[in-house]
Amino acid sequence: MKKIITISREYGSGGRVVGKLIAERLGVPLYDKDIIDMAAKESGLSREVIESAELQAKSSFSYTLSSAVSFGEGFGGEAISMNEKLFLAQFDVITEIGERGEGVIVGRCADYVLRDDPDVVNVFVYGEKEDKIRRCIEEYGDSEAEVEKKMATYDKARRNYYNYHTSRKWGDYKNYDLAINSSLVGEQGAADVICEFLAARERKA
Amino acid sequence: MKKIITISREYGSGGRVVGKLIAERLGVPLYDKDIIDMAAKESGLSREVIESAELQAKSSFSYTLSSAVSFGEGFGGEAISMNEKLFLAQFDVITEIGERGEGVIVGRCADYVLRDDPDVVNVFVYGEKEDKIRRCIEEYGDSEAEVEKKMATYDKARRNYYNYHTSRKWGDYKNYDLAINSSLVGEQGAADVICEFLAARERKA
Repeated sequence: MKKIITISREYGSGGRVVGKLIAERLGVPLYDKDIIDMAAKESGLSREVIESAELQAKSSFSYTLSSAVSFGEGFGGEAISMNEKLFLAQFDVITEIGERGEGVIVGRCADYVLRDDPDVVNVFVYGEKEDKIRRCIEEYGDSEAEVEKKMATYDKARRNYYNYHTSRKWGDYKNYDLAINSSLVGEQGAADVICEFLAARERKA
Repeated sequence: MKKIITISREYGSGGRVVGKLIAERLGVPLYDKDIIDMAAKESGLSREVIESAELQAKSSFSYTLSSAVSFGEGFGGEAISMNEKLFLAQFDVITEIGERGEGVIVGRCADYVLRDDPDVVNVFVYGEKEDKIRRCIEEYGDSEAEVEKKMATYDKARRNYYNYHTSRKWGDYKNYDLAINSSLVGEQGAADVICEFLAARERKA
């Protein structure tokens, strides 16, 4: 059985750290921002262009707009927007990771990309607002006001990006096999619960 | 720390059995249909009246309609619909269980009733359609067509009942601390994962 786990998460929920812990425990690679670099390398898009597209996703209006503005080989059917091109490049990278059969992938609609692989386990990590704010203040040194602003912006960006590319609803339980409130159990505890889920799946198989 | 776990579930996901397993492992009472009887006893409503209200919930239209038709002390402000009266009676019973501090409560909007108690752990159990159908055929001996029909009817009833009384959305991850796809891990596995979650919560506290 493959060891592929995708992690979607609310900003400040500790989902990235949970992913790191699981990758360490399972002895498999962690794929996070690296995916962008790998995708960029394959697509020929520069890091700057990619980060700009990511920022645009924070506003659904500008994201939809820039996704609609096409560039490419002229006016032919091959014209494709920059956001689409980036998404497809990441799509290929994630598909390849899925084929290799092991890894923890954080974000990037990986649950959607790998939706037809029954071996993949999709996890959603979320938390209580007060706890997410506390975590961000500790981790990033931001003020409470800054954290609240970032939290709204990033979660909106993740929702926009996910909903736009997948025609699914970010956070809908049907997309995931396990959803965990990390505020009650912490990052180590969430990793424990996910590992227990993986072990239970092996026992059942 | 209290041992109160609420279980909401899709029809056929095995959520009731998972609740039973957890109650056995924790050595606490399981509250299911019994709640209705207890509520009925307190409210003075007959079992027949209560079951009729439950059935009405299967159609959102007739449920909303009958909830709006009031009966009571005349035309005064005290008039209250039968469905409201039943819900409030169950509300009181669940509140009392919460105060006693231990038990597994299946269904009945218990997560909503006990929403202000930080000790309560709310779980949502769901599953893959094929697996839920298989489980229902095995457990109830229904045909596949019967199961599909019941599945749609009961899940609709649960959604209507929950959304009507709580002004929340049934299945929305924010209502729960843990959501599990039982198809990947089975009923025993789901109980293992929930118990690991409870243990992780105690370690963190």
